[in-house]
Amino acid sequence: VTSFLSQEIGSQPEELARLVDRELDGMRRFVAGLPKHDYIVAAARGSSDHAVTYGRYVWGLLGRRNVVSAAPSLHTLYATPPRFDGALVIGVSQSGQSPDVVAVLEEARRQGRPTLGLTNDPASPLARASDHVVQLCTSPERSVAATKTYTAQLMAVALLAAALSGEEARFTELCLVPEAASKILTGAASACRQAAAALRYASTILPIARGINLCTAEEMALKLRELLRVSTHAFSAADFRHGSIALVTDGLPVALIMPRGAGQDDMRALGREIRARDGALIVISDEEPSPELGATWLPLATSVPEWLSPLSAVLPAQLLGLELVLAKGLDPDRPRGLADKVVRTL
Amino acid sequence: VTSFLSQEIGSQPEELARLVDRELDGMRRFVAGLPKHDYIVAAARGSSDHAVTYGRYVWGLLGRRNVVSAAPSLHTLYATPPRFDGALVIGVSQSGQSPDVVAVLEEARRQGRPTLGLTNDPASPLARASDHVVQLCTSPERSVAATKTYTAQLMAVALLAAALSGEEARFTELCLVPEAASKILTGAASACRQAAAALRYASTILPIARGINLCTAEEMALKLRELLRVSTHAFSAADFRHGSIALVTDGLPVALIMPRGAGQDDMRALGREIRARDGALIVISDEEPSPELGATWLPLATSVPEWLSPLSAVLPAQLLGLELVLAKGLDPDRPRGLADKVVRTL
Repeated sequence: VTSFLSQEIGSQPEELARLVDRELDGMRRFVAGLPKHDYIVAAARGSSDHAVTYGRYVWGLLGRRNVVSAAPSLHTLYATPPRFDGALVIGVSQSGQSPDVVAVLEEARRQGRPTLGLTNDPASPLARASDHVVQLCTSPERSVAATKTYTAQLMAVALLAAALSGEEARFTELCLVPEAASKILTGAASACRQAAAALRYASTILPIARGINLCTAEEMALKLRELLRVSTHAFSAADFRHGSIALVTDGLPVALIMPRGAGQDDMRALGREIRARDGALIVISDEEPSPELGATWLPLATSVPEWLSPLSAVLPAQLLGLELVLAKGLDPDRPRGLADKVVRTL
Repeated sequence: VTSFLSQEIGSQPEELARLVDRELDGMRRFVAGLPKHDYIVAAARGSSDHAVTYGRYVWGLLGRRNVVSAAPSLHTLYATPPRFDGALVIGVSQSGQSPDVVAVLEEARRQGRPTLGLTNDPASPLARASDHVVQLCTSPERSVAATKTYTAQLMAVALLAAALSGEEARFTELCLVPEAASKILTGAASACRQAAAALRYASTILPIARGINLCTAEEMALKLRELLRVSTHAFSAADFRHGSIALVTDGLPVALIMPRGAGQDDMRALGREIRARDGALIVISDEEPSPELGATWLPLATSVPEWLSPLSAVLPAQLLGLELVLAKGLDPDRPRGLADKVVRTL
C-alpha cells in the first residue's frame, strides 16, 4: 500500500493544473477590480506562513508591493488591531478554520479594506470573510504533513503576483509549472532515495536559501520536524553568516536550495564557506553543483523561471522527507507526536 | 579577569538610562514632524532583526501601525525595490555598515519617504541615509555576541512606540526600565548559574514565546547558537503547535518566555502540553511557575509593563548563555567558529 503522503506528493502536478484552470480568470478579475492599495498584509500559521514568505518576494518582485506578515495576536490576545489604511489583506489557511487568521480578515473588512482568502474550503469562516476566495485543492489532504496544499498555496500566491504584474507573459510561464513539476518528481526520485539512505542517521539537516527560496528552506525544515522529529530550522544565507554559521562542524548536513537565479552566486560562496568548515552539502538545483563542493545533488530535471522556482525546488525536499521516513521505518501518514491536522490558535 | 560579555551584560542598565536621556526628546520631535504614513517598513539582519520583531508588536500595539520586515534582497540581489508610498522606513544595524540594510533606506529616500536609523555609529552609511538617527550605545561593544546593543535597539524601538502612541504615560513607564533591569540582573544571577550547571550537557534548548516576547525567544536562540554552537531556533507558541511540537520527547529542554501579560494563559497551556510529553521546562517570568510544571524558574525580580517586557525578559536569557559558556569552559568573547563582529551582506 502506498501512503497518503506519497500519493499526495505525486498528485501535485495534476492539482496544480486544475487550480490554474479553475482560478486564473477569477484572480484576474479580482485584481482588475481592486481599489488603490499601497501594500499587502498577509495572515497565516504553520506551512501556510511559508507561502506568505514566498509572497513577500514575489508580490514585491512582480507587484512592487511591500508585504506585512500579520501578527494575529494583535487582534486576538491584545485586542488592538492595527489600522489597515492602504492595505490589501490576505488570509491563508488550508482548513479556513484558524480563528486568529480569520480575525485579521474580519477586522480588515470592518475597516473597509479588500480581502482575499486562500483555502481548501470555500464554505469556511476564512472564505466567508473574503471578498474573493481561491480554492486550493478540491480533494482532501489526508496525510498530516501538508504537501499538495502547500504547493497549491504557492500557486495561488503566484497567480496573484502575475495578476499584479499586469504582464500576460507571467500567466504563460505559470501555466507551464504543472508539467515541469511532473518531470521534477520523476527526475529526483532515485537521488532522493539514495540521499535518504546516506542521511538516515543524521541528527539534523539545516536547510538554507537566499531570497525567493527562503520559503522552500522553511518548508523543508518544517517537514523534517513534523515527519522525523529532527530539530532543525531554516536560515537565510544572509542571516546565517550573522552568528549561526558557528553551528557548522564536522559532517553537519546542510541543504542548500539554490536553483539558477540571482541568489545562486551567494549560495555558492556560502557553500564553499560551509565546506571549509567540513559541513556536508546537499544541493537542490537545476544546475549540477561544482565538484569542489563535494555535494549530494538532488536535481531539478527541468528549469522554471526564477520567480516560480519555489514551486519546483520544494518537490525534492518533500521526496527526501518521505524517503527518510521510509528509510527509518516510520509511518508517513502518522508522524509520532502529531494527532490533529487542523490546529486552532486564538 | 571578567569577560567583555559579562561586563557588557552588566552595563545594560546604565547604557539604557543614557540612551533614554540622550534620545528621548529627539525622537519626540522626529515623530511630531513626520508626514502622514500608513505603515512601517523595517530592515535589519541578525539580532537587529529581533528588535524589528519587537517593533512589529509594539508599533502595532501603541502606534496601530502594520510593520513590514523588509526583504533587502529585493533591493540588492533582484534590483527591484518595492514602492514605499505610505511608508515610514527604518533601518537597524549596530555598525551601520550592512550594505543591504542601507540600500533599503537609500531607496526610501529616493522615493521621498521619511527614514529613521538605529545604529551605534552616527557617521555610518546607515546614519547618512537617515533623516533622524538614534545612537544606540556610545561605548563600543567588544564581545562578538551582541547584548547591550540589542537591548539598546529594543529601547530605541520602545521610544518610537511611545512617541507614536502620543501618550505621555508611556514615556514615564519607559524611564523606569533601567532600574528594573538592574534589579533583574542581580535577582536572576544565581538561578541562571544553577540552571547552567544542570543544562551543561543539554544538546539543545528550544525557546518559545507568544506575542510581544517572540523577539526574546529569537534572541535567546541566536545567543545559544553563537555562544554554544547549540542547534536551536525560536518558536511562537501558536506556530509550535502546527507540527513542531512533535520534537518534544523525554527531557527535551524547552524555555518558556512568559512574563505576566496577555500571552501568559496560552503559554501555561503549552507548558502543560510539553510537560505531558515529558519535556523539561525552563520558565522566564516575573511569576513563579505553578508546581505542576516542574519547571526551573529564571525569575524576573521586578515587573515592567507588558509592552516593555522584552527589555527585562532577555536579561536572564543572556545570563544563562554566559553561564553555560563558563560551565563548559569556553571563552565568552571568542565563540568558536565566529571571527568577525561586523558581517556585510549584499
